[in-house]
Amino acid sequence: MTPPSPAESPKGLPVQHQYAQELSHCYGCGRNNPDGLQVQSHWDGQTAVARYTPRPEHIAVPGFVYGGLLASLVDCHGVGTAAAAAGFGHAEGTQLGRFVTASLHVDFLRPTPLGVQLELRGRVREHKRRKVVVDVEVLAGGVITVRGEVVAAPMPEDMDLAGQDRRG
Amino acid sequence: MTPPSPAESPKGLPVQHQYAQELSHCYGCGRNNPDGLQVQSHWDGQTAVARYTPRPEHIAVPGFVYGGLLASLVDCHGVGTAAAAAGFGHAEGTQLGRFVTASLHVDFLRPTPLGVQLELRGRVREHKRRKVVVDVEVLAGGVITVRGEVVAAPMPEDMDLAGQDRRG
Repeated sequence: MTPPSPAESPKGLPVQHQYAQELSHCYGCGRNNPDGLQVQSHWDGQTAVARYTPRPEHIAVPGFVYGGLLASLVDCHGVGTAAAAAGFGHAEGTQLGRFVTASLHVDFLRPTPLGVQLELRGRVREHKRRKVVVDVEVLAGGVITVRGEVVAAPMPEDMDLAGQDRRG
Repeated sequence: MTPPSPAESPKGLPVQHQYAQELSHCYGCGRNNPDGLQVQSHWDGQTAVARYTPRPEHIAVPGFVYGGLLASLVDCHGVGTAAAAAGFGHAEGTQLGRFVTASLHVDFLRPTPLGVQLELRGRVREHKRRKVVVDVEVLAGGVITVRGEVVAAPMPEDMDLAGQDRRG
Protein backbone atom coordinates (compact mmCIF):
# COMPACT_ATOMS: atom_id res chain seq x y z
CA MET A 1 0.00 0.00 0.00
CA THR A 2 1.34 3.40 -0.95
CA PRO A 3 1.45 5.77 2.01
CA PRO A 4 -0.88 8.73 1.57
CA SER A 5 0.64 12.09 0.69
CA PRO A 6 0.41 14.77 3.41
CA ALA A 7 -2.29 16.55 1.43
CA GLU A 8 -4.40 13.40 1.75
CA SER A 9 -3.80 12.90 5.49
CA PRO A 10 -6.85 12.96 7.76
CA LYS A 11 -8.52 16.34 7.49
CA GLY A 12 -7.52 18.68 10.24
CA LEU A 13 -4.53 16.64 11.45
CA PRO A 14 -1.66 19.09 12.02
CA VAL A 15 1.72 18.42 10.42
CA GLN A 16 3.28 18.11 13.88
CA HIS A 17 0.90 15.30 14.81
CA GLN A 18 2.37 13.26 11.97
CA TYR A 19 5.88 13.22 13.48
CA ALA A 20 7.03 10.07 15.28
CA GLN A 21 5.99 10.05 18.94
CA GLU A 22 9.60 9.99 20.17
CA LEU A 23 10.39 13.07 18.06
CA SER A 24 7.39 15.05 19.30
CA HIS A 25 8.83 16.69 22.42
CA CYS A 26 9.81 19.99 20.77
CA TYR A 27 9.19 23.02 22.99
CA GLY A 28 7.77 24.89 20.04
CA CYS A 29 5.54 22.29 18.44
CA GLY A 30 5.75 18.92 20.18
CA ARG A 31 2.41 17.39 21.09
CA ASN A 32 4.27 15.54 23.86
CA ASN A 33 5.55 18.73 25.49
CA PRO A 34 2.87 20.00 27.90
CA ASP A 35 5.01 23.04 28.80
CA GLY A 36 5.59 24.04 25.19
CA LEU A 37 3.85 26.22 22.63
CA GLN A 38 2.30 23.31 20.70
CA VAL A 39 2.29 25.12 17.36
CA GLN A 40 0.10 23.26 14.87
CA SER A 41 0.62 23.76 11.14
CA HIS A 42 -1.98 22.76 8.59
CA TRP A 43 -0.80 21.93 5.08
CA ASP A 44 -3.04 22.14 2.06
CA GLY A 45 -0.49 20.80 -0.42
CA GLN A 46 0.77 24.28 -1.31
CA THR A 47 0.84 26.39 1.84
CA ALA A 48 0.94 25.74 5.55
CA VAL A 49 -1.07 27.85 7.95
CA ALA A 50 -0.85 28.00 11.74
CA ARG A 51 -2.63 30.15 14.28
CA TYR A 52 -1.26 31.03 17.67
CA THR A 53 -2.27 33.48 20.36
CA PRO A 54 0.76 34.55 22.41
CA ARG A 55 0.30 34.32 26.15
CA PRO A 56 0.41 37.51 28.26
CA GLU A 57 3.93 36.65 29.43
CA HIS A 58 5.15 36.56 25.81
CA ILE A 59 5.69 40.29 26.01
CA ALA A 60 8.54 42.40 24.66
CA VAL A 61 7.52 45.77 26.05
CA PRO A 62 3.94 46.54 27.13
CA GLY A 63 1.53 45.98 24.23
CA PHE A 64 3.85 44.01 21.95
CA VAL A 65 4.93 40.43 21.35
CA TYR A 66 8.42 39.20 22.23
CA GLY A 67 10.64 38.74 19.18
CA GLY A 68 12.06 35.45 20.43
CA LEU A 69 8.55 34.01 20.57
CA LEU A 70 7.93 35.19 17.02
CA ALA A 71 11.23 33.61 15.93
CA SER A 72 10.14 30.38 17.63
CA LEU A 73 6.81 30.38 15.78
CA VAL A 74 8.59 31.02 12.48
CA ASP A 75 11.06 28.23 13.26
CA CYS A 76 8.53 25.49 14.04
CA HIS A 77 6.11 26.51 11.33
CA GLY A 78 8.93 26.65 8.79
CA VAL A 79 10.24 23.23 9.75
CA GLY A 80 6.69 21.86 9.69
CA THR A 81 6.11 23.29 6.23
CA ALA A 82 9.32 21.66 5.03
CA ALA A 83 8.34 18.31 6.52
CA ALA A 84 4.89 18.45 4.97
CA ALA A 85 6.28 19.40 1.56
CA ALA A 86 8.84 16.61 1.70
CA GLY A 87 6.09 14.15 2.56
CA PHE A 88 6.65 10.59 3.63
CA GLY A 89 9.84 9.98 1.73
CA HIS A 90 12.12 10.33 4.72
CA ALA A 91 10.43 7.94 7.15
CA GLU A 92 8.81 4.59 7.10
CA GLY A 93 5.07 4.21 7.28
CA THR A 94 2.82 7.21 7.46
CA GLN A 95 4.97 9.38 9.72
CA LEU A 96 6.46 12.53 8.34
CA GLY A 97 10.24 12.72 8.32
CA ARG A 98 11.57 15.10 10.94
CA PHE A 99 13.42 18.19 9.77
CA VAL A 100 15.73 20.45 11.74
CA THR A 101 16.64 24.09 11.29
CA ALA A 102 19.96 24.84 9.64
CA SER A 103 19.39 28.57 9.71
CA LEU A 104 16.69 31.00 10.69
CA HIS A 105 16.27 34.59 9.56
CA VAL A 106 13.60 36.91 10.90
CA ASP A 107 12.84 40.48 9.84
CA PHE A 108 10.67 42.35 12.31
CA LEU A 109 8.87 44.73 9.96
CA ARG A 110 6.77 46.39 12.62
CA PRO A 111 5.82 45.72 16.25
CA THR A 112 3.42 42.78 16.63
CA PRO A 113 0.52 43.61 18.96
CA LEU A 114 -0.02 41.39 21.99
CA GLY A 115 -3.50 40.06 22.71
CA VAL A 116 -4.57 38.98 19.24
CA GLN A 117 -4.38 35.66 17.44
CA LEU A 118 -1.52 35.56 14.97
CA GLU A 119 -1.59 33.79 11.65
CA LEU A 120 1.51 32.16 10.16
CA ARG A 121 1.81 31.31 6.50
CA GLY A 122 4.57 29.09 5.18
CA ARG A 123 5.50 28.43 1.58
CA VAL A 124 8.41 26.45 0.13
CA ARG A 125 10.72 28.62 -1.96
CA GLU A 126 13.37 26.03 -2.74
CA HIS A 127 13.27 22.28 -2.39
CA LYS A 128 16.39 20.17 -2.80
CA ARG A 129 16.95 16.71 -1.43
CA ARG A 130 18.96 17.84 1.61
CA LYS A 131 17.61 21.37 2.00
CA VAL A 132 14.21 23.01 1.99
CA VAL A 133 13.95 26.81 2.12
CA VAL A 134 10.65 28.08 3.51
CA ASP A 135 9.32 31.63 3.56
CA VAL A 136 7.13 32.39 6.56
CA GLU A 137 4.95 35.41 7.20
CA VAL A 138 3.39 36.36 10.51
CA LEU A 139 0.20 38.38 10.36
CA ALA A 140 -1.62 40.23 13.15
CA GLY A 141 -5.12 41.40 12.25
CA GLY A 142 -4.34 40.69 8.60
CA VAL A 143 -1.20 42.85 8.57
CA ILE A 144 2.21 41.26 7.97
CA THR A 145 4.40 42.18 10.92
CA VAL A 146 7.22 39.64 10.47
CA ARG A 147 8.89 37.91 7.54
CA GLY A 148 11.03 34.88 8.17
CA GLU A 149 13.11 32.39 6.28
CA VAL A 150 13.85 28.89 7.53
CA VAL A 151 16.45 26.67 5.93
CA ALA A 152 15.46 23.17 6.99
CA ALA A 153 17.28 19.88 6.54
CA PRO A 154 16.32 16.27 7.25
CA MET A 155 17.30 15.48 10.84
CA PRO A 156 20.76 13.88 10.92
CA GLU A 157 20.67 10.29 12.12
CA ASP A 158 23.06 11.06 14.97
CA MET A 159 20.44 13.40 16.48
CA ASP A 160 17.91 10.59 16.69
CA LEU A 161 19.01 9.24 20.05
CA ALA A 162 15.63 7.58 20.58
CA GLY A 163 15.96 5.93 17.18
CA GLN A 164 19.47 4.76 18.06
CA ASP A 165 18.09 3.15 21.19
CA ARG A 166 15.30 1.61 19.13
CA ARG A 167 17.72 0.24 16.56
CA GLY A 168 20.04 -1.01 19.28
CA MET B 1 27.13 64.71 37.67
CA THR B 2 28.00 62.74 34.56
CA PRO B 3 26.22 59.41 34.43
CA PRO B 4 28.61 56.50 34.62
CA SER B 5 29.31 54.57 31.43
CA PRO B 6 28.04 50.98 31.38
CA ALA B 7 31.56 49.71 31.86
CA GLU B 8 31.63 51.65 35.11
CA SER B 9 28.25 50.50 36.39
CA PRO B 10 28.15 48.60 39.67
CA LYS B 11 30.14 45.44 39.29
CA GLY B 12 27.99 42.45 38.46
CA LEU B 13 24.88 44.43 37.51
CA PRO B 14 23.50 42.87 34.32
CA VAL B 15 22.75 45.07 31.34
CA GLN B 16 19.07 44.15 31.57
CA HIS B 17 18.88 45.46 35.14
CA GLN B 18 19.81 48.88 33.78
CA TYR B 19 16.68 49.16 31.61
CA ALA B 20 13.79 51.29 32.86
CA GLN B 21 11.43 49.34 35.15
CA GLU B 22 8.47 49.76 32.79
CA LEU B 23 10.52 48.37 29.90
CA SER B 24 11.70 45.31 31.84
CA HIS B 25 8.89 42.86 31.16
CA CYS B 26 10.52 41.10 28.20
CA TYR B 27 9.90 37.35 28.17
CA GLY B 28 13.51 36.75 27.28
CA CYS B 29 15.32 39.10 29.62
CA GLY B 30 12.93 41.19 31.69
CA ARG B 31 13.64 41.18 35.40
CA ASN B 32 9.93 41.96 35.89
CA ASN B 33 8.75 38.86 34.03
CA PRO B 34 8.63 35.96 36.51
CA ASP B 35 7.56 33.53 33.75
CA GLY B 36 10.39 34.52 31.42
CA LEU B 37 13.94 33.40 30.78
CA GLN B 38 15.56 36.34 32.60
CA VAL B 39 18.70 36.35 30.47
CA GLN B 40 21.39 38.49 32.09
CA SER B 41 24.19 39.94 29.99
CA HIS B 42 27.38 41.29 31.51
CA TRP B 43 29.28 43.92 29.59
CA ASP B 44 32.97 44.55 30.09
CA GLY B 45 33.22 47.49 27.71
CA GLN B 46 34.13 45.29 24.75
CA THR B 47 32.17 42.08 24.95
CA ALA B 48 28.98 40.94 26.63
CA VAL B 49 28.73 37.51 28.19
CA ALA B 50 25.64 35.69 29.44
CA ARG B 51 25.17 32.23 30.85
CA TYR B 52 21.96 30.28 30.68
CA THR B 53 21.02 26.68 31.40
CA PRO B 54 18.01 25.63 29.32
CA ARG B 55 15.23 23.97 31.25
CA PRO B 56 14.34 20.33 30.50
CA GLU B 57 11.26 21.43 28.56
CA HIS B 58 13.45 23.51 26.23
CA ILE B 59 13.99 20.43 24.14
CA ALA B 60 14.05 20.02 20.35
CA VAL B 61 14.40 16.24 20.15
CA PRO B 62 15.71 14.15 23.06
CA GLY B 63 19.17 15.32 24.08
CA PHE B 64 19.20 18.66 22.28
CA VAL B 65 18.14 22.26 22.86
CA TYR B 66 15.21 23.81 20.98
CA GLY B 67 16.30 26.20 18.23
CA GLY B 68 13.67 28.77 19.12
CA LEU B 69 15.08 29.00 22.64
CA LEU B 70 18.56 29.49 21.20
CA ALA B 71 17.20 32.18 18.88
CA SER B 72 15.59 33.85 21.90
CA LEU B 73 18.87 33.83 23.83
CA VAL B 74 20.70 35.29 20.82
CA ASP B 75 17.99 37.93 20.46
CA CYS B 76 18.03 39.22 24.04
CA HIS B 77 21.77 38.98 24.44
CA GLY B 78 22.29 40.79 21.12
CA VAL B 79 19.90 43.57 22.06
CA GLY B 80 21.52 43.82 25.48
CA THR B 81 24.96 44.05 23.92
CA ALA B 82 23.74 46.85 21.65
CA ALA B 83 22.20 48.73 24.58
CA ALA B 84 25.37 48.41 26.63
CA ALA B 85 27.57 49.56 23.76
CA ALA B 86 25.30 52.55 23.09
CA GLY B 87 25.45 53.50 26.74
CA PHE B 88 23.32 56.13 28.38
CA GLY B 89 22.85 58.42 25.40
CA HIS B 90 19.33 57.31 24.65
CA ALA B 91 17.69 57.74 28.02
CA GLU B 92 17.69 60.12 30.90
CA GLY B 93 19.55 59.38 34.07
CA THR B 94 21.49 56.21 34.49
CA GLN B 95 19.12 53.89 32.65
CA LEU B 96 20.25 52.28 29.45
CA GLY B 97 18.24 53.13 26.35
CA ARG B 98 16.07 50.26 25.22
CA PHE B 99 16.82 48.67 21.86
CA VAL B 100 14.59 46.46 19.76
CA THR B 101 15.42 43.83 17.17
CA ALA B 102 15.10 44.85 13.54
CA SER B 103 16.36 41.51 12.28
CA LEU B 104 17.71 38.28 13.69
CA HIS B 105 19.78 35.66 11.91
CA VAL B 106 20.78 32.37 13.50
CA ASP B 107 22.98 29.64 12.03
CA PHE B 108 22.70 26.33 13.87
CA LEU B 109 26.18 24.93 13.25
CA ARG B 110 25.66 21.73 15.20
CA PRO B 111 23.10 20.38 17.68
CA THR B 112 23.32 22.05 21.11
CA PRO B 113 23.28 19.51 23.94
CA LEU B 114 20.58 19.84 26.58
CA GLY B 115 21.56 19.69 30.25
CA VAL B 116 24.61 21.94 30.24
CA GLN B 117 25.08 25.63 30.93
CA LEU B 118 25.44 27.63 27.72
CA GLU B 119 27.64 30.66 27.30
CA LEU B 120 26.71 33.54 25.03
CA ARG B 121 29.24 36.02 23.74
CA GLY B 122 28.20 39.24 22.06
CA ARG B 123 30.36 41.72 20.20
CA VAL B 124 29.40 44.83 18.25
CA ARG B 125 30.39 44.58 14.59
CA GLU B 126 28.87 47.84 13.38
CA HIS B 127 27.65 50.81 15.34
CA LYS B 128 25.72 53.61 13.68
CA ARG B 129 23.40 56.06 15.36
CA ARG B 130 20.19 54.23 14.44
CA LYS B 131 21.55 50.72 14.02
CA VAL B 132 23.85 48.42 15.96
CA VAL B 133 24.89 45.08 14.46
CA VAL B 134 25.92 42.48 17.04
CA ASP B 135 27.54 39.10 16.47
CA VAL B 136 26.56 36.49 19.03
CA GLU B 137 28.05 33.06 19.62
CA VAL B 138 26.51 30.31 21.72
CA LEU B 139 28.90 27.82 23.26
CA ALA B 140 28.18 24.50 24.94
CA GLY B 141 31.11 23.00 26.81
CA GLY B 142 33.40 25.50 25.10
CA VAL B 143 32.28 24.51 21.59
CA ILE B 144 30.48 27.03 19.39
CA THR B 145 27.17 25.48 18.38
CA VAL B 146 25.33 28.57 17.14
CA ARG B 147 26.30 31.83 15.47
CA GLY B 148 23.82 34.67 15.41
CA GLU B 149 23.52 38.21 14.16
CA VAL B 150 21.21 40.78 15.68
CA VAL B 151 20.47 44.09 14.02
CA ALA B 152 19.24 46.28 16.85
CA ALA B 153 17.73 49.75 16.74
CA PRO B 154 16.73 52.21 19.46
CA MET B 155 13.15 51.49 20.46
CA PRO B 156 10.76 53.72 18.48
CA GLU B 157 8.90 56.20 20.70
CA ASP B 158 5.53 54.84 19.56
CA MET B 159 6.38 51.48 21.15
CA ASP B 160 6.86 53.08 24.56
CA LEU B 161 3.21 52.95 25.60
CA ALA B 162 4.19 53.20 29.27
CA GLY B 163 6.27 56.26 28.46
CA GLN B 164 3.36 57.79 26.56
CA ASP B 165 1.18 57.31 29.63
CA ARG B 166 3.93 58.83 31.77
CA ARG B 167 4.29 61.82 29.49
CA GLY B 168 0.51 62.23 29.30
